[in-house]
Amino acid sequence: MTEIPYKIYLEENEMPRAWYNLRADMVNKPAPLLDPATGKPVTLEQLSAIFCSELAAQELNNTDAYIEIPQEVFEFYRMYRPSPLVRAYCLEEKLGTPAHIYYKFEGNNTSGSHKLNSAIAQAYAAKKQGLKGVTTETGAGQWGTALAMACSYLKLDCRVYMVKVSYEQKPFRREVMRTYGASVTPSPSETTEVGRKILAEHPGTGGSLGCAISEAVEAAVTSDGYRYVLGSVLNQVLLHQSIIGLETQAALQKYDIVPDIIIGCAGGGSNLGGLISPFMRDKIKGKADYRIIAVEPASCPSLTRGRYAYDFCDTGKVTPLAKMYTLGCDFIPFASHAGGLRYHGMSSILSQLYDDGLMEAVSVKQTDVFAAAVEFARVEGLLPAPESSHAIKIAIDEALKCKETGEAKNIVFGLTGTGYFDMYAYESFNNGTMTDYIPTDEELEAGFAALPKI
Amino acid sequence: MTEIPYKIYLEENEMPRAWYNLRADMVNKPAPLLDPATGKPVTLEQLSAIFCSELAAQELNNTDAYIEIPQEVFEFYRMYRPSPLVRAYCLEEKLGTPAHIYYKFEGNNTSGSHKLNSAIAQAYAAKKQGLKGVTTETGAGQWGTALAMACSYLKLDCRVYMVKVSYEQKPFRREVMRTYGASVTPSPSETTEVGRKILAEHPGTGGSLGCAISEAVEAAVTSDGYRYVLGSVLNQVLLHQSIIGLETQAALQKYDIVPDIIIGCAGGGSNLGGLISPFMRDKIKGKADYRIIAVEPASCPSLTRGRYAYDFCDTGKVTPLAKMYTLGCDFIPFASHAGGLRYHGMSSILSQLYDDGLMEAVSVKQTDVFAAAVEFARVEGLLPAPESSHAIKIAIDEALKCKETGEAKNIVFGLTGTGYFDMYAYESFNNGTMTDYIPTDEELEAGFAALPKI
Repeated sequence: MTEIPYKIYLEENEMPRAWYNLRADMVNKPAPLLDPATGKPVTLEQLSAIFCSELAAQELNNTDAYIEIPQEVFEFYRMYRPSPLVRAYCLEEKLGTPAHIYYKFEGNNTSGSHKLNSAIAQAYAAKKQGLKGVTTETGAGQWGTALAMACSYLKLDCRVYMVKVSYEQKPFRREVMRTYGASVTPSPSETTEVGRKILAEHPGTGGSLGCAISEAVEAAVTSDGYRYVLGSVLNQVLLHQSIIGLETQAALQKYDIVPDIIIGCAGGGSNLGGLISPFMRDKIKGKADYRIIAVEPASCPSLTRGRYAYDFCDTGKVTPLAKMYTLGCDFIPFASHAGGLRYHGMSSILSQLYDDGLMEAVSVKQTDVFAAAVEFARVEGLLPAPESSHAIKIAIDEALKCKETGEAKNIVFGLTGTGYFDMYAYESFNNGTMTDYIPTDEELEAGFAALPKI
Repeated sequence: MTEIPYKIYLEENEMPRAWYNLRADMVNKPAPLLDPATGKPVTLEQLSAIFCSELAAQELNNTDAYIEIPQEVFEFYRMYRPSPLVRAYCLEEKLGTPAHIYYKFEGNNTSGSHKLNSAIAQAYAAKKQGLKGVTTETGAGQWGTALAMACSYLKLDCRVYMVKVSYEQKPFRREVMRTYGASVTPSPSETTEVGRKILAEHPGTGGSLGCAISEAVEAAVTSDGYRYVLGSVLNQVLLHQSIIGLETQAALQKYDIVPDIIIGCAGGGSNLGGLISPFMRDKIKGKADYRIIAVEPASCPSLTRGRYAYDFCDTGKVTPLAKMYTLGCDFIPFASHAGGLRYHGMSSILSQLYDDGLMEAVSVKQTDVFAAAVEFARVEGLLPAPESSHAIKIAIDEALKCKETGEAKNIVFGLTGTGYFDMYAYESFNNGTMTDYIPTDEELEAGFAALPKI
């Protein structure tokens, strides 16, 4: 049997040339976006006023299984893809497990995460449409960084509204974006009507993602030649992120490896949705029976404790309604260190798959997550992002179960990015001052009570 | 002709299995280390009191051209090596140059730089000798991070003395080291005699690299089962870093690429010495005639404006004397943002090669370096470390000369690491507040006047 290398790389000619659109093969399609004013599905025309035309079309496309990756996007992918599928030999040895652990590492680019896969696709759509630029919001900053980088490459203007508290507490993230030429505005700001209104009502507020979304959308629709872009949750984003899963499957197939368990962290769902898409296709078609596990923070448990209902995608309630597992758009997640997982809802695609019983979900506490992150870092030589470490925690748990049973299962997980900009979090863990939070049933009920009545 | 991919990766079976020891092929050997008390060459026994035995032997080995990489070190290398040789297609296009630009990227590991190549080799030597642990100093923190990571992997104790001002100003670097299980002590400290002495004489001092070296050496020689390790300058370090050059040469040969110019940044010389070693071998043997360029900061110009003389390796004057291009061990380099290049001297091997006319050297201002770094980052998708960006600056300059002459030269440079922990520097550049400093002749003369009389 061929020895499996530490890192399985695809050759350039083995790289996927089309994204895979899981919706085409789903038996129960994800529910459509609804116009909150009419309760009717949003039209392509409505979406195209906010999003780039091509992306709006992708958002509504439930039929084409494969959508060709534009040549320009493929050229960009070639700069940092294919990403390696790493065999975690050292972690296996440390755990003393017979399991084989693999992780798809998406942190090898300056954005530091998988977000770049969609950022370049969205920026390219804007460029092709002849737009001047795009607007977006960012919280922790991974998406903003990725988008700034993609826009810089394509010479597009990039206007990022960054939650003010993050703008001040994460100056490094802000400077990476500025280095790539983006303008970064702390939100709420005086540059938009909604921003001025919020500032008048809440002087000195540190802002929120909901507010930043509202500002970014307003900035897009009131500026000539701009559209709004978003880094997760949307169908189009999961489509672009399918590159992760396609490469993972191709790499496994090179060595005849059949995964038993596939694990990913889940916030809005962009990483998990991308990673599992081709495996879920095989599962839906009855060709394979993988266990697929979404891992979410115990402090923001949209799948494990949320409701499957129509809700706004943002706290400011300016977006269409999406049917998803949600904690309610008024739910304010605990200020955990996994900023990328602090989202009240979950991608409609993943929500439907979960509701159909095709996927499991578990939630984990952040102190347990960081313990797993440190254990992983010490042997594997990678400092993982807090978000990614949710998947690490469950991968380790599953590997330890294999140790008990003696099973040599193949465990595959997504390692979405690096933790270089999360050292305050590691410091807090190292100092023993990190805390956990699990919302009470009463808190969750309050969130559900505020769900829109559809 | 085969198209050259964006990234040239070696297969695992193409990885070098031995380090290359350039000293064996140098016509004029580097001058030996001297005992400052006697003026005589230091013996293996003397060196072994401070360094691990195997490393002391490597330090003095001027005869063996190839030294096998221990299997355990090779296994560790496999976790993050081979590193890619990247064709900078996007930068070439941006510059409109006919030149072909390649960079060897050493930042794909948590230490974020090439330092890990020697850290694991040194930690392994300590482990093999049955030691409990090692001590070292760190300024900017790249070396300390790499050593902490290597020691964690081998379950060795790692005690890092970190210059106090860096300890306070770079909490993230400190936390990465702690995450890998190292103890990090701000220097000067109360834990050593020399530290207490300095604190008594200079209450409230922010420390210096010289002081941290003195503390780390004292901690090693006064603790049972410990030795001191160092991340640059030494012959053994250049030996370990030859892995960079060997991989680069193998990758170029796969596509029949003959470099015209090879460029590296130079502080103590570990990266440059490693990168150029096999190319310098071919040059010495008359098989090729590459231009080899060392790039140093204008604020710390040891090669371009220094003296070739015996000097202490540290400011505290506790080390043996090394013959090198030096600004004098009392020279305090300007607080530039390229902490890894703020060293008063240069590796004895590189100093001899430079003195023999086998290598060029240029110095560059930091604002020009950061302009090049930003230009590079925006098209190549990598945020380079300030140190690495010195090489980028000259690579761009050479590529622009090719644009004028129409020559399609092959330019190869070393990209030693990422700039994730240098965002204050980028912020200062982005804000237009970054300054330059070029020492006056008088300042340099003062440094030379303090050189030891040998």
